[in-house]
Amino acid sequence: MSTARQHKIVLDESELPTRWYNVLHDLPTPPPPYLHPGTGQPVTPDDLTPLFPMALIAQEMSAEQYVDIPEEVLDVYKLWRPSPLYRAYNLERALGTPARIYYKYEGVSPAGSHKPNTSVPQAFYNKAEGITRLTTETGAGQWGTSLAFACAQYGLECEVWQVRTSYDGKPYRKMMIETFGGTIHPSPSELTAAGRAILAEHPDSPGSLGIAISEAVEVAAQDPNAHYALGSVLNHVLLHQTIVGEETLLQLAKVGETADVVIACTGGGSNFGGLAFPFLREKLAGRMSPVIRGAEPASCPSLTQGVYAYDFGDTAGMTPLMKMHTLGHDFMPDPIHAGGLRYHGMSPLVSHIYESGLMEAVAMTQTDCFAAGVLFSRTEGILPAPESTHALAEVVAEARRCAESGEAKVIVVGLSGHGHLDLPAYAAYLAGGMQDRTYADHEVQESVREALTKLPAIPS
Amino acid sequence: MSTARQHKIVLDESELPTRWYNVLHDLPTPPPPYLHPGTGQPVTPDDLTPLFPMALIAQEMSAEQYVDIPEEVLDVYKLWRPSPLYRAYNLERALGTPARIYYKYEGVSPAGSHKPNTSVPQAFYNKAEGITRLTTETGAGQWGTSLAFACAQYGLECEVWQVRTSYDGKPYRKMMIETFGGTIHPSPSELTAAGRAILAEHPDSPGSLGIAISEAVEVAAQDPNAHYALGSVLNHVLLHQTIVGEETLLQLAKVGETADVVIACTGGGSNFGGLAFPFLREKLAGRMSPVIRGAEPASCPSLTQGVYAYDFGDTAGMTPLMKMHTLGHDFMPDPIHAGGLRYHGMSPLVSHIYESGLMEAVAMTQTDCFAAGVLFSRTEGILPAPESTHALAEVVAEARRCAESGEAKVIVVGLSGHGHLDLPAYAAYLAGGMQDRTYADHEVQESVREALTKLPAIPS
Repeated sequence: MSTARQHKIVLDESELPTRWYNVLHDLPTPPPPYLHPGTGQPVTPDDLTPLFPMALIAQEMSAEQYVDIPEEVLDVYKLWRPSPLYRAYNLERALGTPARIYYKYEGVSPAGSHKPNTSVPQAFYNKAEGITRLTTETGAGQWGTSLAFACAQYGLECEVWQVRTSYDGKPYRKMMIETFGGTIHPSPSELTAAGRAILAEHPDSPGSLGIAISEAVEVAAQDPNAHYALGSVLNHVLLHQTIVGEETLLQLAKVGETADVVIACTGGGSNFGGLAFPFLREKLAGRMSPVIRGAEPASCPSLTQGVYAYDFGDTAGMTPLMKMHTLGHDFMPDPIHAGGLRYHGMSPLVSHIYESGLMEAVAMTQTDCFAAGVLFSRTEGILPAPESTHALAEVVAEARRCAESGEAKVIVVGLSGHGHLDLPAYAAYLAGGMQDRTYADHEVQESVREALTKLPAIPS
Repeated sequence: MSTARQHKIVLDESELPTRWYNVLHDLPTPPPPYLHPGTGQPVTPDDLTPLFPMALIAQEMSAEQYVDIPEEVLDVYKLWRPSPLYRAYNLERALGTPARIYYKYEGVSPAGSHKPNTSVPQAFYNKAEGITRLTTETGAGQWGTSLAFACAQYGLECEVWQVRTSYDGKPYRKMMIETFGGTIHPSPSELTAAGRAILAEHPDSPGSLGIAISEAVEVAAQDPNAHYALGSVLNHVLLHQTIVGEETLLQLAKVGETADVVIACTGGGSNFGGLAFPFLREKLAGRMSPVIRGAEPASCPSLTQGVYAYDFGDTAGMTPLMKMHTLGHDFMPDPIHAGGLRYHGMSPLVSHIYESGLMEAVAMTQTDCFAAGVLFSRTEGILPAPESTHALAEVVAEARRCAESGEAKVIVVGLSGHGHLDLPAYAAYLAGGMQDRTYADHEVQESVREALTKLPAIPS
């Protein structure tokens, strides 16, 4: 060992990127438009005004290559950004690999994940347009915590519907949301028509992100002072996350590295897009040629097993129809511990990029993920979020392939957050009580797929 | 708001201090020696060899001004060090104070607190001398987690006795210790004579740090391959922590500031000493003139209410006698949420400095502490450890005094860790269910104080 080796590449606040990157500008073809479920026509900005402020709607539909980050947002970002990029020397040694592994760590944010990168601008733009209350859904709770933090920064009310399986299994997230001043309900709840309808049919429903979205959207649509905030999937969300990849490129350049493989976990797609899109820009411009790979859960594998079709973003069918990789909007994912990845669909933008052949995807089983998480914590010291362990499991696999082939690839991985509030998942893994189920175990699979392929043709 | 303002002062790894600072060298008078409980004579290095490696015993007794940090320790430190120093703009604004508040954040470490600053060198020196197993106690769990992490880095076994009230109330710490590969028991336990003796008399004992120390020491003393590791109190522990203050001085210099008030919470004294001792050096050398102030819990106020006398460090009376501020080694602190501050004594070094008039101390009630913690989380975004909120409560008080007087003091505060695993404490506070008890509520107070003053005279 030598003290000369550098574990962290840190940026000064003066080096914080001041623009978000819009990958739409550089794609060979544009993604299919969102459709109004009533008319079957592309949605207009007016269709979205009940839920979102104009600034975010404009970003959702923009094809400009860059969007300036407002000064007031940069000022809050600086509570934790720029985030560190680490060289994983200890993990490399444990794996006996010639690969050089770099991880971009977003767990330093107030909420402990990448999510505040978008919750902060979303709260800012809503506040600027006179909104006083935001509603949202959350799975594992990373997003709900992030929105509660952002609302505290700008003096907004925050109301969160959390998927019941996470609400019950990981109570610390609820406590953190309340500490930030937010309100939280388990979903499905009796507070909304969408929730009541689910509970009437499935009183013991573990909930899903799709159901929770329905509830939050319903409440926001009925209150003129409220808007809805989404933590993933949509273009503007992924736009905000690109600050992660932009910083990573600056940091790699500081140590003279370019990426050979970029790996990130994919649930709704925002963590993946945030890291990967700036690398995709470099690839499309011919300045770098990384393989870009998403890692999703085997039990909810929208990219690798879903169909590419128009579907709703929520369970009740209140959102626009989006062309995306989907397992069906009424698909009920297993209650795996990576709650942030329990979503039936995939960002339309990521789906389009996948269909365009610009990225790869792999599906990981839960036990492999936690094995990688434990290895990571004992070597690098950071306890990764269950979501992040999906990327780490693929890093372990790639690094072992490098060990066999002798290739000294540069692997860049997004470590989307810490797992401090997900420790019961680690305890379950260590106790040997964790079971793997894959998508093939779901009996509904074929009927859902068949129904889905018909959806785009549904008229008003 | 302007993006020109800098929230974080970060150091590059190349700026990491490479020496620990030994305040003993610069004190006007030396602290009284530790005494052997059997002979009443000063302890010798040989007395300590059953528990500690020679390198640490040498540091414990050294009067050299600086100790070089081994390369292998610096390499592990770099997994999180240098840690950031923040300017708390948002907190200042919320308090309407002209004071400039800087907080040094140790929650970025793998265990989430300042404790790995000493667990890493302790594990390293033990490994270097052939030890294969370390035992220890832990209160809230910060120290046990830190030692488990450090042992994972160097391939040592780690066995932790955790105070039962924390073991039961905050199960996530146990899970984290196990994820790092450690073993953990609630204390008092049936595994030791010390634990069995307590349980025989008090079957429902909530435990205390003093009892847990007795158990860990007993086990280490009986295994030639095992040593004991202490997370606070002793000179070598405080020595290792001085890297915190050394970094802080470098960071303040970068923005051209000198401290007027330095505030840190005090339990056993390691967090306080780590931040304060380098500032004390500057003060003694006439280069700076900060007020240095410890903030302790009102329910366990060793500095402000204890007597300065020779006492045992543990409950069973197995340690050397140390002259320190103590509430009596059989004092049972209330089960407050700041488990890391539930200790009957105070570091002999800190006690001596307090007696020398070189520092101040204040005692804070639990509800004031959590009020400050919630304010801090909603403004600065970081959820502080319950221990750290004691310092924050005093910062709030000092900043408000500045608001009244108009003084623009520079306040430097040690934020010793995050409170992610202490969220039930925040939930209890927010639910209004938290009660304040002070030392005066303890009926045993007078008899303990009387007994204590007689202790130094006890012969073998």
